[in-house]
Amino acid sequence: MLKLFYARNACSLASHIALEEAGAAYKAVRLDFGANEQRGSDYLAINPKGRVPALVTQWGILTETPAILAFIAQSFPEAKLAPLDDPFAFAELQAFNSYLCATVHVAHAHGSRGYRWADEEASFADMKRKVPQTMSECMSMIETRMLRGLWVFGDRYTICDPYLFTVSHWLPRDGVDIEKFPKIRAHAALMETRSAVQTVLRAELI
Amino acid sequence: MLKLFYARNACSLASHIALEEAGAAYKAVRLDFGANEQRGSDYLAINPKGRVPALVTQWGILTETPAILAFIAQSFPEAKLAPLDDPFAFAELQAFNSYLCATVHVAHAHGSRGYRWADEEASFADMKRKVPQTMSECMSMIETRMLRGLWVFGDRYTICDPYLFTVSHWLPRDGVDIEKFPKIRAHAALMETRSAVQTVLRAELI
Repeated sequence: MLKLFYARNACSLASHIALEEAGAAYKAVRLDFGANEQRGSDYLAINPKGRVPALVTQWGILTETPAILAFIAQSFPEAKLAPLDDPFAFAELQAFNSYLCATVHVAHAHGSRGYRWADEEASFADMKRKVPQTMSECMSMIETRMLRGLWVFGDRYTICDPYLFTVSHWLPRDGVDIEKFPKIRAHAALMETRSAVQTVLRAELI
Repeated sequence: MLKLFYARNACSLASHIALEEAGAAYKAVRLDFGANEQRGSDYLAINPKGRVPALVTQWGILTETPAILAFIAQSFPEAKLAPLDDPFAFAELQAFNSYLCATVHVAHAHGSRGYRWADEEASFADMKRKVPQTMSECMSMIETRMLRGLWVFGDRYTICDPYLFTVSHWLPRDGVDIEKFPKIRAHAALMETRSAVQTVLRAELI
């Protein structure tokens, strides 16, 4: 059985939802970031990067949200979470997820994890102040150039949707008013009507 | 014919090498970052994010290095640049590329593009000072935990190799001595013996 290591309010939510949508047999294991469990020796043996998500499979351990999402789509083709027989369309999904991972998530992380990239308290404060601007710019790019319909890729639900949902759930903490992005707001609301999303949100909040 | 937009010293080098290794019919078009061509209206019509790489295909335009690399591997299966029939192994490649994209490239970018995440000159200087440390930590992770052999995945050359080569070429500018990472140094040297790599380096340096 697959085992997903996740933390509350982390990007691991995307993989958690995707596993549920895929109908996978899996166990979700919560790490307590407040207690710094992700830096403990037990977890570092699973993921030496000390981050979530990590997905334990019968073949080995996977990390990195875009890789795990594509793996879930390819491993459960009957769930139709990606256009697996069309390399260009598949790459478009991957480009969207890569943007969330390397640009949007990184912008968000500057709000609370500035120590990754600087040493001075004044720099951390400077970074934190800029988060509403950078996250708004990212959301504007998604709202105006990327979202194709009710779902990220139009009328087809894919592995991009739980990832966008995860990121848009961070907006209140990032000082961004989701009301300014009506398509993204509608996407989040539509996601919340899905039973898989409800199941995962309940599990992560218990 | 595929058309790749690239810039010198940019992460687009990875896609450029992969196209050459795949034996693809492609044209490479250089953007002059010094003249800020990536922010000009002509290029923003191609990639509204104003970044490289962008790959123009007959079906549309792709961005984001990990997505383009996987697309090349899937589009030219005879080049055997990824284990396309094994979702777990494919995901391992993707996890490696995602780490380079979202962690290593981001660490590198703090050396010269701090304005993306902060506003004060003092913050930019603080970020720049930390780059040798963060990039060394990343290289240590790759050297000790990720590199499996002469190539990233052992005896098999994949889409991860041109990407690692691209990143390890940045180390002198990042203030990191590659001699401290003998496997990464050997990987870079081995890459430079490949005719595809030599062809691309010559084309980018003309």
